[in-house]
Amino acid sequence: MQFSPLIEALIQALRCLPSVGPKSAQRMALQLLERDRAGATHLASILQQSMAEVGHCASCRTLTEEMLCRICSSGRRNPKVLCVVETPADMLALEQSGVYDGRYFVLLGHLSPLAGIGPDDLGFDQLLEKLRTEPVEEVILATNPTLEGETTAQYLVELLSSLPLKVTHLARGIPLGGELEYLDGGTLSRAFSGRLGFASVKETNG
Amino acid sequence: MQFSPLIEALIQALRCLPSVGPKSAQRMALQLLERDRAGATHLASILQQSMAEVGHCASCRTLTEEMLCRICSSGRRNPKVLCVVETPADMLALEQSGVYDGRYFVLLGHLSPLAGIGPDDLGFDQLLEKLRTEPVEEVILATNPTLEGETTAQYLVELLSSLPLKVTHLARGIPLGGELEYLDGGTLSRAFSGRLGFASVKETNG
Repeated sequence: MQFSPLIEALIQALRCLPSVGPKSAQRMALQLLERDRAGATHLASILQQSMAEVGHCASCRTLTEEMLCRICSSGRRNPKVLCVVETPADMLALEQSGVYDGRYFVLLGHLSPLAGIGPDDLGFDQLLEKLRTEPVEEVILATNPTLEGETTAQYLVELLSSLPLKVTHLARGIPLGGELEYLDGGTLSRAFSGRLGFASVKETNG
Repeated sequence: MQFSPLIEALIQALRCLPSVGPKSAQRMALQLLERDRAGATHLASILQQSMAEVGHCASCRTLTEEMLCRICSSGRRNPKVLCVVETPADMLALEQSGVYDGRYFVLLGHLSPLAGIGPDDLGFDQLLEKLRTEPVEEVILATNPTLEGETTAQYLVELLSSLPLKVTHLARGIPLGGELEYLDGGTLSRAFSGRLGFASVKETNG
């Protein structure tokens, strides 16, 4: 036995959510039907509206329903630094750390020949155009330290090499609160080869 | 910084789903916007339809968009046995075990004076009416073995005591695959006091 067709369709539809399997989807469907129909109806209308209206910022490609996102339209951001990230979530993480006051460019992915994602999909043309027309002096490549992220960064380094720009990447090393015992060999070897004198550490911390 | 107002509203709305916190809701919203707009739009319309159309079976109170659920409308179920459960999910679990061919009555909750849930909310009148008009000979009280579930069962036992019915409950004991070491004292004491001779075990298994 299963539930009635409409409830089964609801359980199936809920599985489009990331990391929701058959059992969680069933629990969600029953809970919404039994206890929160108002919340579910609200969710339905917001979902519909978001999927129809949210597009990309014309300047940095992040997700927004506005023409320009809040960072691109703000007059308070430093226009001389541009940070290239893979996703809107990466952009949010950097914003929440509060260390950065420049602007962003969101690739919405990384180079992945196997998945058919090439330079055209990541807006490299738009990035070059932006660098030509805006007073950017430094580009920080903050792609993820994965194989695909590093490949994407390497490609961008070559692409940008002809422009009169400083191109940097985030420091690699031991994360704060990390334990040496549990770190992978790659991270440890990067941390060793990039080791610093205590003076520099003080400089960085101060 | 946060996302744009519509994306923030979507993240907030997703939190009506059980066990979805702020971080999961954000991941869900971004994933749907970046990769599965078709799925999300479909989910929105099914959600809307389900919340509007799914009601309760007129006979057993389970969730269904039909007048009668598939079990109540089936001619193949044994009309002499009625199993009382707390939720549609409990009903599904019993159905999936395949051991039961009778009908059900779904309380949609359990007695809970603190939460203001009394006999009226659990359809006890409808249950009595059903027992009066249908040829039921045995009522199996399959509420959960929790304090509220046991209280509800006890209340029903008294309510049904005047009717010419056999009233039973599910056996309590060690679950299959359970390890004595990890079982609670209550379960162990029930299993001890209800211990069986090996003949009876063979009877049950056979």
